[in-house]
Amino acid sequence: MRIDVLTLFPKMFEGPLTESILGKAIEKKLLEVNVANFRDFSENKHQNVDDYPYGGGAGMLLTAQPIFSGIEAIEAETPTTKKRVILLDPAGVPFTQSVAEELANEEHLIFICGHYEGYDERIRTLVTDEISLGDYVLTGGELGAMVMIDATVRLLPDVLGNNLSAQTDSHSTGLLEHPQYTRPADFRGMKVPEVLTNGNHKLIHEWQEKESLRRTYLRRPDMLAALDLTKEQEQWLAEIKEEEK
Amino acid sequence: MRIDVLTLFPKMFEGPLTESILGKAIEKKLLEVNVANFRDFSENKHQNVDDYPYGGGAGMLLTAQPIFSGIEAIEAETPTTKKRVILLDPAGVPFTQSVAEELANEEHLIFICGHYEGYDERIRTLVTDEISLGDYVLTGGELGAMVMIDATVRLLPDVLGNNLSAQTDSHSTGLLEHPQYTRPADFRGMKVPEVLTNGNHKLIHEWQEKESLRRTYLRRPDMLAALDLTKEQEQWLAEIKEEEK
Repeated sequence: MRIDVLTLFPKMFEGPLTESILGKAIEKKLLEVNVANFRDFSENKHQNVDDYPYGGGAGMLLTAQPIFSGIEAIEAETPTTKKRVILLDPAGVPFTQSVAEELANEEHLIFICGHYEGYDERIRTLVTDEISLGDYVLTGGELGAMVMIDATVRLLPDVLGNNLSAQTDSHSTGLLEHPQYTRPADFRGMKVPEVLTNGNHKLIHEWQEKESLRRTYLRRPDMLAALDLTKEQEQWLAEIKEEEK
Repeated sequence: MRIDVLTLFPKMFEGPLTESILGKAIEKKLLEVNVANFRDFSENKHQNVDDYPYGGGAGMLLTAQPIFSGIEAIEAETPTTKKRVILLDPAGVPFTQSVAEELANEEHLIFICGHYEGYDERIRTLVTDEISLGDYVLTGGELGAMVMIDATVRLLPDVLGNNLSAQTDSHSTGLLEHPQYTRPADFRGMKVPEVLTNGNHKLIHEWQEKESLRRTYLRRPDMLAALDLTKEQEQWLAEIKEEEK
């Protein structure tokens, strides 16, 4: 997969792109990431990239030209790849695990990171997708792009050490993950549930499935409502409701 | 405000903390951010911080001890501050603008960034808040912490150049922002709406309010449903519905 990022703050990406899973994926050549400063594409003699909004209002807006030219430079360099051009925008489609799964099947993603008060509306004509990280306001699109890149890249084959891991997480199964414990069995008087230490795999598996259901029921009933439960799950859920009364 | 971050990947924070608004807030002493590697607190002779899960399963879990000791070190250094200890967790309360507003009123935030397959359940006994960035899976809590820090810090007084900006964004008013334009008036044949260039402030204001409503109606009817509209807005909405038929 190739990823291009257009931003005014390329240095923000340095840590995230060299550390952790993302850095390893780049090292293993599973991924190529290019971060470009779209100020370099400004045809303005002072390399300006922003200007006052028409009609007044607080703050400055990104102008169309540098971002148009930045996208055109990527197009010229990679004329044959099928591209998704993603604008990070609070007015976009909310980002979810299924958006990440969709993006993970693409060959070439381009992220446009806004900044300042917003951008010229005409920039939207360049993009295939407008995506919002969530219902909150950030100072720019950079962190949003990093989050979407991380969520997407970890789904690519061979990126996680254990391919199973990506599939069993919260939000991949539709349920929250059950509580997990590691050594010591007793930490400052807090003990690991006995069922997990007795080696009965059937009971362990049942406990995990039930506690996963319980956590989802208690914390995210909206997620539970979206699922088709098995008969066994329905029965556990009835037990849980009784226990949590 | 003081912010502490406990992470295994402190370098991930370097770019985001020195660039953009966050770097400026730190420079202006509006904010102090300390990023610590909780591996430094491990009492294990190999400085291990993870171990196999009880009951089996893919991947490794963070052990309790290094994170308990990391929190205790912060407590010892700042015994008098009132703390919110935030665990980044897919099973947490979804992060929203109102959570950011709440956090912006605190004096001391501590973020615990998980990694690997998850963490020992007993770590949850340390925290005041479990927050999820959204319904997607990331390789670690680091990017989530950065997003929450960014969304929170930009609300602090004097952090944004223009205090007005923070209040007029999407998600602060409950409506998505209206389209915005800057120069040139004609970019590659795409023209700025005439109303924005004629200098009639009343008409401009009405256009902006109506287009803000229109965008929210078309893209996020769920946000619209949560608002108490004024009579004027109700009338505009009726017009919009007619126009968009």
